[in-house]
Amino acid sequence: MGHVAVVGIGQSRFGIRSDASLRELAFEAVKACLEDVGVQLAEVESMVVSVASDELSFALQPSAQVTDYIGFHPKPSFRVEAACASGSMAVRAGWMNVASGLADLVLVVGAEKMTEVPTPIATEVLGRAGDSLWEYPFGMTFPGYYALIAQAHMAKYGTTEAQLAAVAVKNHYYGALNPYAHMRKEITLEKALSSFVVASPLKLYDCCLISDGAAAILLASEKVAKRLRKNPIWLRGLGLGTGSLSLAHREDLTTLGASVEAARQAYDMAGVGPKEIDVAVVHDCFTIAEIVAYEDLGFCPKGEGGPLVEDRQTYIGGRIPVNVDGGLKSKGHPIGTTGVSMAVEITKQLRGEAETGRQVPNAEIGLSHNVGGNGQHAAVHVFGRDKE
Amino acid sequence: MGHVAVVGIGQSRFGIRSDASLRELAFEAVKACLEDVGVQLAEVESMVVSVASDELSFALQPSAQVTDYIGFHPKPSFRVEAACASGSMAVRAGWMNVASGLADLVLVVGAEKMTEVPTPIATEVLGRAGDSLWEYPFGMTFPGYYALIAQAHMAKYGTTEAQLAAVAVKNHYYGALNPYAHMRKEITLEKALSSFVVASPLKLYDCCLISDGAAAILLASEKVAKRLRKNPIWLRGLGLGTGSLSLAHREDLTTLGASVEAARQAYDMAGVGPKEIDVAVVHDCFTIAEIVAYEDLGFCPKGEGGPLVEDRQTYIGGRIPVNVDGGLKSKGHPIGTTGVSMAVEITKQLRGEAETGRQVPNAEIGLSHNVGGNGQHAAVHVFGRDKE
Repeated sequence: MGHVAVVGIGQSRFGIRSDASLRELAFEAVKACLEDVGVQLAEVESMVVSVASDELSFALQPSAQVTDYIGFHPKPSFRVEAACASGSMAVRAGWMNVASGLADLVLVVGAEKMTEVPTPIATEVLGRAGDSLWEYPFGMTFPGYYALIAQAHMAKYGTTEAQLAAVAVKNHYYGALNPYAHMRKEITLEKALSSFVVASPLKLYDCCLISDGAAAILLASEKVAKRLRKNPIWLRGLGLGTGSLSLAHREDLTTLGASVEAARQAYDMAGVGPKEIDVAVVHDCFTIAEIVAYEDLGFCPKGEGGPLVEDRQTYIGGRIPVNVDGGLKSKGHPIGTTGVSMAVEITKQLRGEAETGRQVPNAEIGLSHNVGGNGQHAAVHVFGRDKE
Repeated sequence: MGHVAVVGIGQSRFGIRSDASLRELAFEAVKACLEDVGVQLAEVESMVVSVASDELSFALQPSAQVTDYIGFHPKPSFRVEAACASGSMAVRAGWMNVASGLADLVLVVGAEKMTEVPTPIATEVLGRAGDSLWEYPFGMTFPGYYALIAQAHMAKYGTTEAQLAAVAVKNHYYGALNPYAHMRKEITLEKALSSFVVASPLKLYDCCLISDGAAAILLASEKVAKRLRKNPIWLRGLGLGTGSLSLAHREDLTTLGASVEAARQAYDMAGVGPKEIDVAVVHDCFTIAEIVAYEDLGFCPKGEGGPLVEDRQTYIGGRIPVNVDGGLKSKGHPIGTTGVSMAVEITKQLRGEAETGRQVPNAEIGLSHNVGGNGQHAAVHVFGRDKE
């Protein structure tokens, strides 16, 4: 198996980007990525594009807009999708593209434009990532799915609303320090707890944002990576798990089987365990999802995710800093972009290039965790840098 | 670069399959595929799914329906998409999955359910595979796109309506011999020429079908392939090209640059040229598309595609038999399925297992050609069998 490195990273500012279309957002990220490493587009051999939704893009084959606008044709490009984990599928497919020997330099692009439709329409579209035959038509949407998960977690482990809110407070704290984040403002525990109920027990500040944005990374074979950069970041472990379409078919609502499986694969492949992870980004589409992720990834024993964040152990300086880019909660969640943006963030952390106040000191091994739907897909990637 | 083989093939009957949902169609194909090689689902390590449209599937993340229904979780699976070339993206991603060393046994599934919506709605959805910002909103649909291509080809090369109709006559002739085909009936040249005009010069019989259906192949590494089968079929060349989003940006409407590029890559990788291809399936979404494909793939000089089919040189016994499974025209075109079904057909031909009357004698090297949109993507794959 060949070694594959991240040699370039770039992303657009996330937010309500009424100034830019899907293709223009992608261009912003690609430009930043190529400038980061000093590579011309002409040198890139192949591309993988993640755009999650046809309907939000008003297109079939939405990736063709990106390929066309950045001027990539006639070179190879295709789209991957797994709802909110689409970006990680692009990272995975990009890794395969290089490791298989088909190309030495592959661009991985994630882009999504979500704010062109009213929020209720976006919520409808996203709702169909769940069981669109037996759950969605009866009124199920994503706040509802994760509210059920939160209720089950509270009932089984005594997780509290204040612990959920603590996730939001942390992620807003770090998001305020990230110039690419959608919502750059700190919030208090009181503000989070007193915000209106979306789907009990989830309140406004328990829910991530609907955002526009794009991200890009450039992947390279070992030979080319060493030519392009002194200290490339290596993509060392890949994990991908899947779970039942219906939440109703899950034996236990307090865990995502897909995440557990993905973590197992990624740790095995990288030859590390959760204790060796210095920094992580996890899929906090709702605050409860971050708590469940702590447990599914092995950052703490099952049921202890609530106390972990309440004790500030997932802040920098704690046991395992998580989502110090603001997470989906404050950075934003353009669904096809998120997985690629996670790879950008971990690379930035391992290079030591994160903004003041949110750099994890001397991070050597990082992890990204990205969920599609409510656990139909989950991807875990482990990144590492060479020792100095 | 590792060698990758097709060790199992299966497909559902194509047609108006009101008896089966998307997930049930996929199950039919997967079951047939695993039975073909005698492998249990438990032995399969990973899966790639091609479903082209969210809207036709009434879902975001439509591949999760397939993964769930065949009982594949928690193992890795993700979706790829490039409109009507989606199936070939799945074959490509499946190849990468094996060749990268990530898995030894990978299931590639294509499925699409198109007839649950009225035909005008399907035509609308498909129309958005073109430029959904600058062409589709002004009334452009796929018959319109290919009518422009046909007009240009007729003006430049003197291609005739009778030559277009000859493609339909050939493909219906072979489709009638294929038990999996949607429309199993022969037609006459007179019938094709007198059918109603859809978009001049394209008439009813110049247009492919809107169909439901699924197909699956099992890919294996060299080591595993040799254990599973005496004579596996090798996937020897992969090509993927892209083209401009707008037809208006093409310098020449009589060729698809994406196809030319994909063919170049695939021939190079396989170390063969067009003269060595014994049997081919090409993307005949409209009759003109098959004529353009002959030329883009090098089966004849530019402009001579019309005479090639008129002289029956693409029948069995002619220079290069093309679409002897009936093609998209008569077998049908469930858009996410087609590329995988093409791999099924070429494997069947190279094994010598095609039905009576449509087996190309002693075929050793086969080619598939699959177009996404009107040339935003095109894939060419070259398959070969070991010499006896």
